[in-house]
Amino acid sequence: MSFDKDCFYCAKDSRLDDLMIKICDLEVSTLYLFKEQTYNGRCLVAYNGHVSEICDLSDEERNAYMNDVAKAAKAMHKAFNPVKVNYGAYGDTMIHLHFHLIPKYEGGPDFGGVFQMNPRAVYLTDAEYAELAAKVKENL
Amino acid sequence: MSFDKDCFYCAKDSRLDDLMIKICDLEVSTLYLFKEQTYNGRCLVAYNGHVSEICDLSDEERNAYMNDVAKAAKAMHKAFNPVKVNYGAYGDTMIHLHFHLIPKYEGGPDFGGVFQMNPRAVYLTDAEYAELAAKVKENL
Repeated sequence: MSFDKDCFYCAKDSRLDDLMIKICDLEVSTLYLFKEQTYNGRCLVAYNGHVSEICDLSDEERNAYMNDVAKAAKAMHKAFNPVKVNYGAYGDTMIHLHFHLIPKYEGGPDFGGVFQMNPRAVYLTDAEYAELAAKVKENL
Repeated sequence: MSFDKDCFYCAKDSRLDDLMIKICDLEVSTLYLFKEQTYNGRCLVAYNGHVSEICDLSDEERNAYMNDVAKAAKAMHKAFNPVKVNYGAYGDTMIHLHFHLIPKYEGGPDFGGVFQMNPRAVYLTDAEYAELAAKVKENL
């Protein structure tokens, strides 16, 4: 797997810890709980290698990664019962493949529209984060 | 493949024609050029069956669909040379799996941020749409 010491998804340093909490390893990726929880249960699936986009993966790598993404989304559906999970891969200036997985709820924030990248509005206690992470993990 | 006559991705009626132009069929999906072209070369890949999310597909269906998505993104990179393609699947109220593929350019609209779903700002002539569609198609 390729690695870039300046990338926080590779280095797994405090820049990453400020934004998210590791839930567990998946087959070729790492599942995180996003600390900003405007969208209750929001997660992120980061590919383990330092590649830019889905289209930079081999067929085998892409199949394994998207299997991880689908597995995480299924667990979020079971854990939180949203109407829909939104899937977003952007990273214009952050060249390391990751998908934001955003649960959307009828009447909830931005339902029917594009989610905000970081509303910087809802943060929880460590115990509350642990509870959300456990809910996802037990439904994987 | 499942079908819902009330869904415009299934019915392929004027509601769809108002928003996008078919470029071509892919293996298990249809590739469209989005008419609103704030993000030069913006496309959309709609799955051919009426399912809600990636996580509702079988492994085989998901692999085929994501291969189509990756193929389209690669063609967009070759055709338009963006810094990055963004991949977004939302559809909170539109229950038919599709990915928005948004080319992002340094200094261009929303570079470094989330793309807008429909800025309703940039529309082209039929000849210009045909030229963009041809560029994507010839790079598939």
